[in-house]
Amino acid sequence: MSELSLSQKAALGSGADFWTTKAVGSVPALTLTDGPHGVRKQTGATDHLGLAGSEPATCFPPAVGLGQSWDVGLIRRVGEALGREARGLGVDVLLGPGVNIKRDPRCGRNFEYFSEDPFVTGRLGSAWIEGVQSIGVGTSPKHFALNNAEDDRMRSSSDVDPRPMREIYLRAFAHIIRSADPWTVMCSYNRINGIAASENQWLLTDLLRGEWGFDGVVVSDWGAVADRVRAVAAGLDLEMPGSGGRTDAQIVDAVEDGTLDEAAVDRSARAVRRLAERAGAGRAGRVVVDLDLHHRLAREAAGRSIVLLKNEGAVLPLVSGQSVAVIGEFAREPRYQGGGSSHVNPTRLDVPVDEIRASGHSVTYAPGFSTDDAPVDPADAIAAATDADVAVLFLGLAASHESEGFDRDDIELPPDQIELLTRILDVQPRTVVVLAHGGVLRLDAVAAAPAVLDGALLGQAGGGAIADVLVGRVNPSGRLTETVPVRLQDTPAYLNFPNENSHIRYGEGIYVGYRWYDARDLEVSYPFGHGLSYTTFAYSDLSVSAEDSDVDGVVVEVTITNTGPRAGREVVQIYTSKPGSRVGRPSRELTGFAVTRDLEPGELQTVSVVIDRNDLAYWDTRVDRWIVESGEYAVHSGASSRDIRLTLTVEIPGDDVVLPIDENSTLGEVLANPAAAKALAGLAENNPLMSAGNDALGVDMARMLASIPLGRLAGFGMRDEDIAGIIAAARTD
Amino acid sequence: MSELSLSQKAALGSGADFWTTKAVGSVPALTLTDGPHGVRKQTGATDHLGLAGSEPATCFPPAVGLGQSWDVGLIRRVGEALGREARGLGVDVLLGPGVNIKRDPRCGRNFEYFSEDPFVTGRLGSAWIEGVQSIGVGTSPKHFALNNAEDDRMRSSSDVDPRPMREIYLRAFAHIIRSADPWTVMCSYNRINGIAASENQWLLTDLLRGEWGFDGVVVSDWGAVADRVRAVAAGLDLEMPGSGGRTDAQIVDAVEDGTLDEAAVDRSARAVRRLAERAGAGRAGRVVVDLDLHHRLAREAAGRSIVLLKNEGAVLPLVSGQSVAVIGEFAREPRYQGGGSSHVNPTRLDVPVDEIRASGHSVTYAPGFSTDDAPVDPADAIAAATDADVAVLFLGLAASHESEGFDRDDIELPPDQIELLTRILDVQPRTVVVLAHGGVLRLDAVAAAPAVLDGALLGQAGGGAIADVLVGRVNPSGRLTETVPVRLQDTPAYLNFPNENSHIRYGEGIYVGYRWYDARDLEVSYPFGHGLSYTTFAYSDLSVSAEDSDVDGVVVEVTITNTGPRAGREVVQIYTSKPGSRVGRPSRELTGFAVTRDLEPGELQTVSVVIDRNDLAYWDTRVDRWIVESGEYAVHSGASSRDIRLTLTVEIPGDDVVLPIDENSTLGEVLANPAAAKALAGLAENNPLMSAGNDALGVDMARMLASIPLGRLAGFGMRDEDIAGIIAAARTD
Repeated sequence: MSELSLSQKAALGSGADFWTTKAVGSVPALTLTDGPHGVRKQTGATDHLGLAGSEPATCFPPAVGLGQSWDVGLIRRVGEALGREARGLGVDVLLGPGVNIKRDPRCGRNFEYFSEDPFVTGRLGSAWIEGVQSIGVGTSPKHFALNNAEDDRMRSSSDVDPRPMREIYLRAFAHIIRSADPWTVMCSYNRINGIAASENQWLLTDLLRGEWGFDGVVVSDWGAVADRVRAVAAGLDLEMPGSGGRTDAQIVDAVEDGTLDEAAVDRSARAVRRLAERAGAGRAGRVVVDLDLHHRLAREAAGRSIVLLKNEGAVLPLVSGQSVAVIGEFAREPRYQGGGSSHVNPTRLDVPVDEIRASGHSVTYAPGFSTDDAPVDPADAIAAATDADVAVLFLGLAASHESEGFDRDDIELPPDQIELLTRILDVQPRTVVVLAHGGVLRLDAVAAAPAVLDGALLGQAGGGAIADVLVGRVNPSGRLTETVPVRLQDTPAYLNFPNENSHIRYGEGIYVGYRWYDARDLEVSYPFGHGLSYTTFAYSDLSVSAEDSDVDGVVVEVTITNTGPRAGREVVQIYTSKPGSRVGRPSRELTGFAVTRDLEPGELQTVSVVIDRNDLAYWDTRVDRWIVESGEYAVHSGASSRDIRLTLTVEIPGDDVVLPIDENSTLGEVLANPAAAKALAGLAENNPLMSAGNDALGVDMARMLASIPLGRLAGFGMRDEDIAGIIAAARTD
Repeated sequence: MSELSLSQKAALGSGADFWTTKAVGSVPALTLTDGPHGVRKQTGATDHLGLAGSEPATCFPPAVGLGQSWDVGLIRRVGEALGREARGLGVDVLLGPGVNIKRDPRCGRNFEYFSEDPFVTGRLGSAWIEGVQSIGVGTSPKHFALNNAEDDRMRSSSDVDPRPMREIYLRAFAHIIRSADPWTVMCSYNRINGIAASENQWLLTDLLRGEWGFDGVVVSDWGAVADRVRAVAAGLDLEMPGSGGRTDAQIVDAVEDGTLDEAAVDRSARAVRRLAERAGAGRAGRVVVDLDLHHRLAREAAGRSIVLLKNEGAVLPLVSGQSVAVIGEFAREPRYQGGGSSHVNPTRLDVPVDEIRASGHSVTYAPGFSTDDAPVDPADAIAAATDADVAVLFLGLAASHESEGFDRDDIELPPDQIELLTRILDVQPRTVVVLAHGGVLRLDAVAAAPAVLDGALLGQAGGGAIADVLVGRVNPSGRLTETVPVRLQDTPAYLNFPNENSHIRYGEGIYVGYRWYDARDLEVSYPFGHGLSYTTFAYSDLSVSAEDSDVDGVVVEVTITNTGPRAGREVVQIYTSKPGSRVGRPSRELTGFAVTRDLEPGELQTVSVVIDRNDLAYWDTRVDRWIVESGEYAVHSGASSRDIRLTLTVEIPGDDVVLPIDENSTLGEVLANPAAAKALAGLAENNPLMSAGNDALGVDMARMLASIPLGRLAGFGMRDEDIAGIIAAARTD
């Protein structure tokens, strides 16, 4: 970096304004803008909060919807489209994907995240990044890390133990950094075990760069830096938005007075320069932005994102000629994205009622309820439902109910919507509910309807996609990426969310999402991975290879046959478990998945999934590293986390840990070590333990004594040299 | 301490052998022995593990039973009897009571503890101490602190946040230290947030002596000291058992080489000398030990400890002339205490079947099952039950199933016992189950019986007491001090107990016991505080005083009327709650209780309970102190935690915290402060926030911005001097 002065290097590390970096020396300015499900490129001059209107851009389904496709190929294509639109608008880095874990359904920003599960999050996040970056536009997986609540998000500390940190909250980031090479990573607002993410040396340097090999730019979430000097020392490269030069001067002063090592400023400047080089290379070549094509892709993606939660009596798909009562404010004013920084100005907007009408059905419409507390007489809706062959009722949460920036207090649908549903069902048993929401809803009341489509948030083409599924042009293949609990009180973080005095204890540990409901054997309304189809699939011929040197893991194959009347896709899910593990582990964990091609009736496909050996490991706090236990693992293939169709076991050679015998080893551990046990037994005459009877204390003394550390026996009459002898015996074995 | 040399002072701080301290200078040796529910004074010479047989002593009900009496007067009398027996055996300090909280039903030592609730634990523990110490014998409340599991207890770290630490786990200790002045406190084996209790300066010095004013001896649990130098520096006074002088020399060396302040050794020696003075004074006067009287007291206490869980069809009490089939191994070999250090050699032992026979009933007996896995043909038991008018079936856990030193894996009764019960019920609908167990059992299978007596562990006179309750000589008045959950999977610590790699995360926080089941709205088999009677009670005329300067709290009065056919006692429970608290709080918490006198049919008694103002407080982590919130509190009186009979509200003037406005205050907090809000509003023209519209981001910006810290606005265009102005405005208001 010798060609740049200290002040130039400092200047590279903070924005010029809200959205751009500074041109310094030979390094050009760069533009970073919000995503992830569309490009929010602000129009005109930037303001201090980035709140001005933005250029029209395709609004693809937000992650809450898109993730339900479970389709890495589709998501990669969406990423490519996003990359083209970013290029077209002169954007160098699109700020996404959001890969935080949905720890609690009340988190206001869950709609920007993929799942409660880190494995599917990591795979889908990588596909998104690969798509965007293939067009020459950078990405910024966010919010790194442990940003799982919105309330008090700029102060709140996520207080979390090593295993959940590694196995749940960092796992998707680790996969993405290693597999998709994002140009940047965005550090989060929150603190982690008391230390701000932007000032967290362990997170930004030791882990991200050291363990994972990240070589891009660490950019702050907008406003996440409280002290840039500390942040740069910890590993931050780029503070956004700009500070008008205020913090550049602080960096220069800190280097000059010796409180900041200039090497950290060099690292920051070098990273930003490299980002500019990548962006420059990315701008090479022309891209064509075809907004019509992107709208069609948005519709395809939305169709693939819809989950058919239930379909009793084959109410769906609608039959040609049926008259349809379309009810609900969301049928004419769709709720299709979330509020906050990701809010896109869509290029167009499909209206569900119009799309259903365009499908050839005779449609009557009534709003039935309002989204702004204005009273609506439901009489028209009830009359329409009574008169029609089928009612399609659009329910959900208005934008005011959930957003980036604050959390929900509950997971309820508005009571007037529930009341409307009840009254509609009284007159029309063939009622389909279509749900729009960013965060999970309690659905026990909705379960009274025979058919339910979960649209989550579907982007600008959701209206057309819903019509496609309703009429059967698209056979639904979406699967839940988040459990629908019976009630909020059952959820894992119910009693420690969002924060108390700016601390959030992640007390449920690794038992997040389905891991919790399974471990506690709780009923759920719809399990993780659930989703029906208009056809049916049979699973057969599950096989698991022995560990294979070619893939560093095992290869699972299973044959899927379309046994029903329509073409359709199946999302095949592979879960693994380790019976008898030495640590607490989930009943089963997702470690693989695949989407079949569109199978015709009777057609079969053998899907092949590699289970990465790393995904069988747990984080061992005794040695602070990942450990694969030796022994038998169960491999399950199924259509949801609770619809396991086939199970096999496979023997995995592990990398088990042998800990030395020392003074802190318990007698139980000594006895489990042959050499040490022999040395202990040899002391029988000098050893008060060996002569301990069971009678006086009314207890099995051997079991009671097993937890005494060897060194502590000095206080119970064992000679120091005998203790040393046992330790030595184990060492020389 | 000038009369003692350094080595003499060091010698005072560790034992001479397993049970005694050293005589040093003018300070005599002292004898400390295990309790708590009887005196375990070892016979003959001590061995290194304290395992030899012990002198006969009255075995009172262990805390799991005795606590179910909820009767401080009774427990004080038991304490006096224990004190007399200790005096008679030359014991200076009786090592008890056990006042750890029953965090998880699997903890092997739960039988030595009173409850899942800290309030009742503190009150009962104090009564026990007052009783023992009134006779001139010291006590040692234990195990200080956070010792809530047995597995790996000498290494395991109890990792716990400040609120549960203070509000649940330290609360009983705090009450006891302040109200009962125990001569010693026993520090526990485990670590607390990574630091061994025996080396925990915060625990032993800052909290125990500094905050709570303890002026006695901190004695180690036997073998809890790994490094006596560090322990003495942290606040330990007396290491037990003795080390043969080994650690005395370490203390001398550490003072001489400057690693240990001699003042700490002085503190330790002074504390032991004062203990010797107290013990010397305690030995003045004669005590008479009347073992017959103590056995009668043990029987009274056992009778008061029995909980009538259910009694459908008034199966109990037995009617004169009924023939009784007594079934179960425990009817002839009673399970009446737990294994481990508390194991007492009883002076005699009541046998249930003999006591029932002695009550005048025609009794047939069959074991039905064994406790040692030997097969037993149940045919005799079934025949006996068939032929009798009533069957009384003694079920429970054998000593080998639970003990100090290890934890249980489940909370199940042995399957052969459940099978036997099912077969008995097939032939004899009038079946009474009598339960013996140290830890809570799953009782859904037992619920098939019409009547269930929970005897927990009842001590040497339990057999007579059970007969007393069966035949109605004693009307049961015991109440559960621990919730009986429907199943283990519902329990609060299910997924983080006992430890993983020597760490236990107390992830459920303050929601322990009934606080958990209530907060998560879970069904339970029998709630905390539950217990039936052979009579019925009506609650009326609940009143709550305004806060009263005489009592530093409020006075609650409620009138109890015996509305049934027999004399009986009611345990009146007072719970309080703070609706709308700023922190998460339990649905209700026990803050008072009282036992009525034995009320004749139709008789009434107005009981008066003082709710200590401290018991309405929560631990505020913003200011690290107890805070009583201002406002309305609900005061509930009831017969269990889920059988609330009457509720009132009372307005309590609080000591709410006003935090200063500074750079870390959020905009929400600024807006809640009138002066700061005015200063912010005055900046409207310079303030980008005030002009933020809602449209671009599709969200209520005011709500989204509310969580931004004031200082962070420097990055969003607010001038530093304007931020300073807002802070100054709040300060000068």
